[in-house]
Amino acid sequence: MSRDFLINGRRDGCISPFDRGFAYGDGVFRTLPVRDGTPHCWERHYRKLCEDCKVLGIVCPPEEVLAADIAMLVNAGEDATVKIVITRGESIRGYAVPALAQPMRTVIRTPDQTYAPDNASEGVKLHLCALRLSHQPKLAGVKHLNRLENVLARMEWVDAQFADGLLLDVDDHVIECTMSNIFIRTGTQLTTPDISRCGVAGVTRERILELAPLLACQAVIADFKLEQLFAADEVIICNSLYGAWQVRELKGKVWPRGGLATELREHLLLNDTRTA
Amino acid sequence: MSRDFLINGRRDGCISPFDRGFAYGDGVFRTLPVRDGTPHCWERHYRKLCEDCKVLGIVCPPEEVLAADIAMLVNAGEDATVKIVITRGESIRGYAVPALAQPMRTVIRTPDQTYAPDNASEGVKLHLCALRLSHQPKLAGVKHLNRLENVLARMEWVDAQFADGLLLDVDDHVIECTMSNIFIRTGTQLTTPDISRCGVAGVTRERILELAPLLACQAVIADFKLEQLFAADEVIICNSLYGAWQVRELKGKVWPRGGLATELREHLLLNDTRTA
Repeated sequence: MSRDFLINGRRDGCISPFDRGFAYGDGVFRTLPVRDGTPHCWERHYRKLCEDCKVLGIVCPPEEVLAADIAMLVNAGEDATVKIVITRGESIRGYAVPALAQPMRTVIRTPDQTYAPDNASEGVKLHLCALRLSHQPKLAGVKHLNRLENVLARMEWVDAQFADGLLLDVDDHVIECTMSNIFIRTGTQLTTPDISRCGVAGVTRERILELAPLLACQAVIADFKLEQLFAADEVIICNSLYGAWQVRELKGKVWPRGGLATELREHLLLNDTRTA
Repeated sequence: MSRDFLINGRRDGCISPFDRGFAYGDGVFRTLPVRDGTPHCWERHYRKLCEDCKVLGIVCPPEEVLAADIAMLVNAGEDATVKIVITRGESIRGYAVPALAQPMRTVIRTPDQTYAPDNASEGVKLHLCALRLSHQPKLAGVKHLNRLENVLARMEWVDAQFADGLLLDVDDHVIECTMSNIFIRTGTQLTTPDISRCGVAGVTRERILELAPLLACQAVIADFKLEQLFAADEVIICNSLYGAWQVRELKGKVWPRGGLATELREHLLLNDTRTA
């Protein structure tokens, strides 16, 4: 069960070396929790999958097809983590997109992700990555399959004390972490980086931007650098699997316990009722 | 025969959705011609494959293992095109590289690539791509599997009159074409762009840099922009499959027939005797 997957709906499916996801990273993906058999914030994840496909000119499979795949892999009442990969499909050779490319869908059930319980209760320590994210506005925001920057950044540390690595761009702006988006709180202002040149527009980032007013914060999208991050009252990282964690330590700077990460995590655990 | 391949040496092999080449583009590749059953410039291609693997921290399979795979797919006396893909191997989820990842090799035989004969005899027309290559010095030069920039650039034109698309970087430097490296000749100086920030260090580019003195040219690696390209006496693009073509037209600028592309092509057709 720990390596359960469907390729175009088939359990005996397999990925061809001619698939352009394999050949060029020509596709997009999502990782999301399934709780009690229900994909968490599914409408939002599906909408983001469609938006990302659209940037690459790939037709996303219908929502009900992907939902049926997930239901095949995760029974009612079960918790799991699911990864969805949509690629452009096959071509024989060359970058040109064949007129008849048939998008390929892969839905993978992986073991429910577990993290050190302290990450939520006590907060986390970040590694500061040396790798700088490059600027490609035509791909910024998209969770595409070209993730070598994340792989190389993640190779920078092996020490398990670091829950994630902070990534800056070539202009020294704070952008995100290797598997997380980031927010800084200064007073009641909650700021997350502009990701129009690089970075991934995560679903949890979007939810926090919407939740901020409920928590008496003003949400802002703006460029900021390490100095502003070090000066912030609270630093929070987020993704769809763990929700939100407070960053307690980076490069010797230590932040006292704040309350916002916990509040956010509780709100994020609720399945949002927003429709696609 | 047109879709013949071996995965880790097996004809019944198939790519797992957990392969990191598929998940993240975490791997490298090469495409090369096999002539009369012999991979063209094999030592050089194998060396480049090892160098690219090394940048990503992947152990490249031994030369004799890959050569045996090619020999399984292409008989003595046959011509074909072969693509080799080396990925880091499998992991369950997340960017962290598992300590025990076993690199995966895929060798694909595709039909011998055919191009319009006029491309060699008359020269070619290029599309000028709007997409600008981003700067990622940690990956520059490497023929890795993160090729979405090439895919998006190639999507910019459908008109078959364009043999390739010219790519500039974010600083307006000329870098390469979507499937080719590029040289400009001014007098006897043959210049190819610096690719330390972006671009692929192709094997044919390397061979031309070495061949230049034999053709009474001084080879130079240097930054240049479109103005210098338009002012050049001759513009030449190259790759391992077609050798070298003269660029005759770009954005309304037309170059007269030069002789260097033809000379280069004849030299490139010879199998080099350089050892690894």
